[in-house]
This record gives sequence, structure tokens and C-alpha cells, in this order.
Amino acid sequence: MSSALERCNELATITAVPGRIDRFHLTPEHKRANELVGSWMEQAGLRSWVDAAGNVCGRREGATPGLPALLLGSHLDTVPDAGKYDGPLGVVLGIEVASRLRNVDLPFALEVIGFADEEGTRFGVTMLGSKAVAGTWEASYLDAHDADGVSVREAMLAFGLDPEGVSGAARRDLAGYLEAHIEQGAELQDAGLALGVVTSICGARRFSLTVLGEARHAGGTPFVRRKDALIGASHIVLEVERIARGRGIVATVGRLEVSPGAVNVIPGKVDLSVDLRAGTDGDRDAAWDEIRASITQHCAGRGLQLSIREEHTAKAALCSPRLQEAVAAGISATGRNDVARLYSWAGHDGMVLEPITDIGMLFIRCHDGISHHPDEAVRAEDVELAAHAFTQAVRSLAVR
Amino acid sequence: MSSALERCNELATITAVPGRIDRFHLTPEHKRANELVGSWMEQAGLRSWVDAAGNVCGRREGATPGLPALLLGSHLDTVPDAGKYDGPLGVVLGIEVASRLRNVDLPFALEVIGFADEEGTRFGVTMLGSKAVAGTWEASYLDAHDADGVSVREAMLAFGLDPEGVSGAARRDLAGYLEAHIEQGAELQDAGLALGVVTSICGARRFSLTVLGEARHAGGTPFVRRKDALIGASHIVLEVERIARGRGIVATVGRLEVSPGAVNVIPGKVDLSVDLRAGTDGDRDAAWDEIRASITQHCAGRGLQLSIREEHTAKAALCSPRLQEAVAAGISATGRNDVARLYSWAGHDGMVLEPITDIGMLFIRCHDGISHHPDEAVRAEDVELAAHAFTQAVRSLAVR
Repeated sequence: MSSALERCNELATITAVPGRIDRFHLTPEHKRANELVGSWMEQAGLRSWVDAAGNVCGRREGATPGLPALLLGSHLDTVPDAGKYDGPLGVVLGIEVASRLRNVDLPFALEVIGFADEEGTRFGVTMLGSKAVAGTWEASYLDAHDADGVSVREAMLAFGLDPEGVSGAARRDLAGYLEAHIEQGAELQDAGLALGVVTSICGARRFSLTVLGEARHAGGTPFVRRKDALIGASHIVLEVERIARGRGIVATVGRLEVSPGAVNVIPGKVDLSVDLRAGTDGDRDAAWDEIRASITQHCAGRGLQLSIREEHTAKAALCSPRLQEAVAAGISATGRNDVARLYSWAGHDGMVLEPITDIGMLFIRCHDGISHHPDEAVRAEDVELAAHAFTQAVRSLAVR
Repeated sequence: MSSALERCNELATITAVPGRIDRFHLTPEHKRANELVGSWMEQAGLRSWVDAAGNVCGRREGATPGLPALLLGSHLDTVPDAGKYDGPLGVVLGIEVASRLRNVDLPFALEVIGFADEEGTRFGVTMLGSKAVAGTWEASYLDAHDADGVSVREAMLAFGLDPEGVSGAARRDLAGYLEAHIEQGAELQDAGLALGVVTSICGARRFSLTVLGEARHAGGTPFVRRKDALIGASHIVLEVERIARGRGIVATVGRLEVSPGAVNVIPGKVDLSVDLRAGTDGDRDAAWDEIRASITQHCAGRGLQLSIREEHTAKAALCSPRLQEAVAAGISATGRNDVARLYSWAGHDGMVLEPITDIGMLFIRCHDGISHHPDEAVRAEDVELAAHAFTQAVRSLAVR
């Protein structure tokens, strides 16, 4: 087994709940993962440290000390009951590249980073690690709370970080950011390809919706007198799918909670989420406009109140042509002439870094597109090809 | 205000959560309600006791001691965040009748009962109180658990009841059962009538359904590769309504739980309930057959696994002609010539008692049919009419 896969296995043992993978921001597991990854960085010839936001970092100098750094990395935190590869694989591949290029002179410094928080699982705010590096971290994040009422501020103090010092993690000296990641989709598998070049990271919008009806006895209330919030919510779920499908974008209702939730009471209230992603912001926004119009009209016709709150917006982020070409050159070096180019439907740290530096991504085939699930799987030979391609991508940037 | 309404107000203060009404089986609130109602029974000239199932009972003898008893009553437990009248009003009206007939010789004993559990809120099994009286209580109920993992057995011991002694509550000496209850529907309101005679209590069937799909990342999974359990469940919710509505019966999905329930994960599993009620068992069963066929086909077409478990079946229960006439005579005595006869769409303790004795029900108009909700409301003048009609119904049985 490649050292990258062995290291993913080892990271998978660092979890809050044995038997599954739960590794969240600013927890003891985060600290243990940083220590382990820091030791691997040192073994690869990198000087390692933990930055002011809890990201674990490693650096070697280029031909002369103090050159701008090409940053390789991904994130070390997970969703609940996660797979082994979403995040960690990109970090250990970055370390693998550093190791393979240990004795090669480079015209830039080489750094590897394991971001502390991308998923946002613990505090409901995503990408806290890369936002700190991009300098877009906001002081209001300190007041976000986890499910137990612990704030980011309190968690940072407990972790040994200074809540007022996050700006110290911001970087202005990057020569680019390259990330390797499992595809979390099945386009590469369907095309029979191990690797692909990402052209852009899709923009996403997330909404919280509340449908308000009237809780009543399920027996004595005829349909004409009902205001059943779950009927409205079910219609929303199906409309979101119908419209997104028709427009070739993706959309998901992942959370839906019914109140009061008793067998013999008509639902009075439903809270649900809508997540929309598209290759361009325009496609995504047009789909949302159609969804909003349809569900607003339907709820009104049913006597239901619908309220909508936008929780999160991320613009689509273009991978720079220069770094797309570097990744493509790396893939070609593995012996493939046909290099796949594809969207990333999922969000990644690169979206956050794109305003401060060029970004590029290498996608690795994963089994059936399964991700955010214990069944997440990659082939050992694909990971070996990825390590080679990722190394060659960095080499190709060095010769320009 | 009538004493019946005052007493409903007083019972409403006995709650696990101040500011709402939560009074559940075998809790300290159950004990306090029994003590209060027992004291009212004694004031009305009844000898009172708590039976082996936790029901509070009161009795006065008829012309000679030991005659079969005409039983008046309803239940004292509630749904979560309940109204004041569903249950308690029937108990206090029974006590009111006993008080008004205190000095009247009757050819039967007169008893009033406050059933300990009708709603099934705490343990998920309904009508534990009347099932004990009917002799249909099953030993397996002792192992049912509440949300905290406390079993019926443990709760009975804590309450001071013998879990092995429930059969002591069974009765074989009843001359009939009469219950007054709010309609929990709006037929009386729409007809401009205060009171009505129930002809039968609708049969109900309840099912637990599980839709099993595949939890995946919401970004990277195109629609053609999705097995979204919530899409299947939403279709079920809408089909249940469409088919029931078309057939003139009522059906409700009141509970629906999504797993894993994260904004960016496609739902892998949904658990939901279906509750069906109809005036005849045949209508209800035909509707279910159509629903089952439709949703089974839909889920199969989506690659979703559907499993169905029947949780509860209650045959429709006919109110006896003799007791229907007694209730009608009571309503006529209030000065109405047009006596409304209607179904009860909701279940009641009478369904459980019907195999052991004749049953009859008096319905009282409630505001807009709202029930199982804090907005449950009755008019004071309707309650006064109900007290008179209910008393006259018992008198009419005495003269036969």
C-alpha cells in the first residue's frame, strides 16, 4: 500500500467516536491530527508549525530563502461519520510531493497545509481554516456556537489559540494553491479515467426555509380545513428536484424537521434546507428564482406561510489557466493523452483562497462518487498515479 | 363560568412544563390529576379510588347495592402541548352529572372514570387505561419504553402500581359506557349546533414506513446517481393525501424523520408514519391498498427500499342504538328538535370498551375543529347545555 493510503488509514483512527470517523474543529482529535501530520511534514524535510487559526503547516525554502510559496494542501476535519479520503488524502499527497522533491531545487518555496476546518461540522460556519489564510476571517465567527453551546472563542482558548490573533494566519506571499482531492462524483469512473483537471469550483447557495401551517388533530380535521405544513414541504422537496434536474444543475434538501412530529397531529411547522450548485452563478441564480416563485405560489395556495433565509453564498471559483495546465501536464506525465476536465460540484478551500492567489485542483477517481459516507473508497493504483501526477505538476511549474 | 370549565382550567395547571399542557401517563402530574379528580368525585357523592391500571374511579350505588354500573368518563392524559378539553371535559362532565343526580334513585350504579392513558404520548401504546378496564391489556405493554428508556413496568412501580396486577382493573359488570367529548372537528360548528350524537367511532390504521436510499455528498452526485430517500418520502406524503382526499376519508403523515439530516448530504433514510381513518373499515382498507400499491411502485422506480410495519389497527366501533337514543333524548331535552348524528373521526376509549359493553358518545362543538393544540376552545353556553343533556341522557336510561 502506498504511504499516502497508509497515512489516510492512520488519520482515520483519530476520531471522537471509535468505529466511525468524527474529527471536528478545535477538538482533542484536531490536536492529535495536527501533531501526526506535523511529524510527517518534518520527515519530508519541511519545517512545521501550527498557525494562528489551528491549521498545520510545513515549509521548505526554494532556491533562495523567503521566496513566495506554492501551497499544497486540503483539510483534516470531517463531516459526521465520514469517509477516510475527503480532505486527508490531499494533505498526505502534498506531503508526498514535498518528500519526492526534497532534493530538487525549486524557484519558489514549497509549503503544505492541513486546514483545520473546511466542513463546518462543529460550528456551522464552513472553511474557518482557509478563511484565516485568505484574510477573510470575520470576528463574528468567534461567537458561533457548537451543539453544546461552546463558542469558537472558548474552543480556541481551550485549544491554546488566541481568539484575537487569527489575522496572524493571513498570507500575502503565495505563488499559488494546488489541491488534490477525491472527485466526490462519478464522472471519472464513468469515463474510465483515474485523474482529472478541475476547471472551476461550482458556486453554491444555501437556504433555510420554514413552512408554517396549523397543528391539528389528525382525526377530526377534514382536508378542506387543514393547513398541513408537511404537504407544503413535500411539494418543495419535489419542486427543487424537478426544476434543478430540468436545468442541469444539482440541488438537495438534506435537512427537514417536522413539528410537532406526532403520529396523530397534523404537522404545524416544517424547517428545511435547500442547497443549490451550478457551474455558473447565473445558472444557479436562475434556478433559484424559478424554485422560489413556484414554492411561494404553492404555499400561498395552501394557506401556508413560507419564510426563506439565505444562509450561505459562494461564487463559482475559476481555476487559473496556468495551474490547470500544470495539473494537465502532471496527468500527461502518467502516460495519459486524454486529460479530463471537469467541474467540482462540491466546495473546496480553493474557493476561499482564489481572491488572494491562483488556484488549481487535481481530482482523483473515487468509487461510485460516494463521499461524506464511510463507504468512500479509492483505488491504490489511482493514488499512486495521483502522487506522480501531483509531483510532476509542481515540477512543471518549476521549469517555466 | 360553569364548574366544568373551572375544573378544566384547574386541571390545565397540572403539567410537566409550565406555560403549556403536558400531562403524561404514570408521571407525577398523572398522580396529582388523579388526586384532584378523586376529591371532586368525593364532593359529588362518589366513593373514589385509583384502580390497578392508574385510572381514577368513583362510584355511587343504585337502588340496591351491587347493581351493574353505567360508566361515564374520558381520559386525563394529554398530547404534548395540548389543549384543555380533549379528555378532561368528559371527566368533569361525568362528575357534574353524578352531582346533579346525587339524590336521584337509579336502577343502576353510577360510576365516573378518568382514564390514565388514551393518547399514548409517553409509551407509544394508546389507551392503556381503557384496555385494562376492557381486559385486553397485554403483558407485552410492560416492556414498552418512553423516550428516556423507562419501561411501563418501571414507571408503574415508581407510581406505586403492581405491574403484574393490571388484570385487577378489568370489569365485567358494566351496564354501558357514555362519554362526552369535544368534537375535534367542525361539523357541529358548520351546522350551527352545540351538541351531537356520535353514531360510530371511525376505524383507524397506523403504519410506520422506512424509505432507504443512499446518503451521499450533495455536491458531487448528479440526479441520475442519487437514491434520495426524502424524494421518495415526499412522494408518499403527497400520495397519501391525494388518495385519501379522493376517497373521502382522512389520512395524515404526522411524523417524518430524515437521516443523516445534514444540509450537504443527500438523505439516506427517512422514517415516517401514516394514519388512516374512515367511517367503515372497508373504505379505510381499500384506501390503504391503493396507497400501498402506488408508493411501492414509486419507491421501486427510484431504487429506494420501502419497508412498512403496521403499528396499530382499530376496527370502527358502532355506538349502540340504545345509547344513541339516550344521548339524543338528552339533546332534545335542551330544546333542540334537530339532533345531529355524526361520525367520530378521532379514536376514543369507547372503541376499546365496545367489546364488553354498549357505548355511546355526546359530542360538544369546539372552535374551528382545533384540537391537540393550545387553541382548543369551547363556548361556556355549550358546556352548560352539554351538562344538562348528559344528565338527561342518564335520566332517560333510568326510566326505561
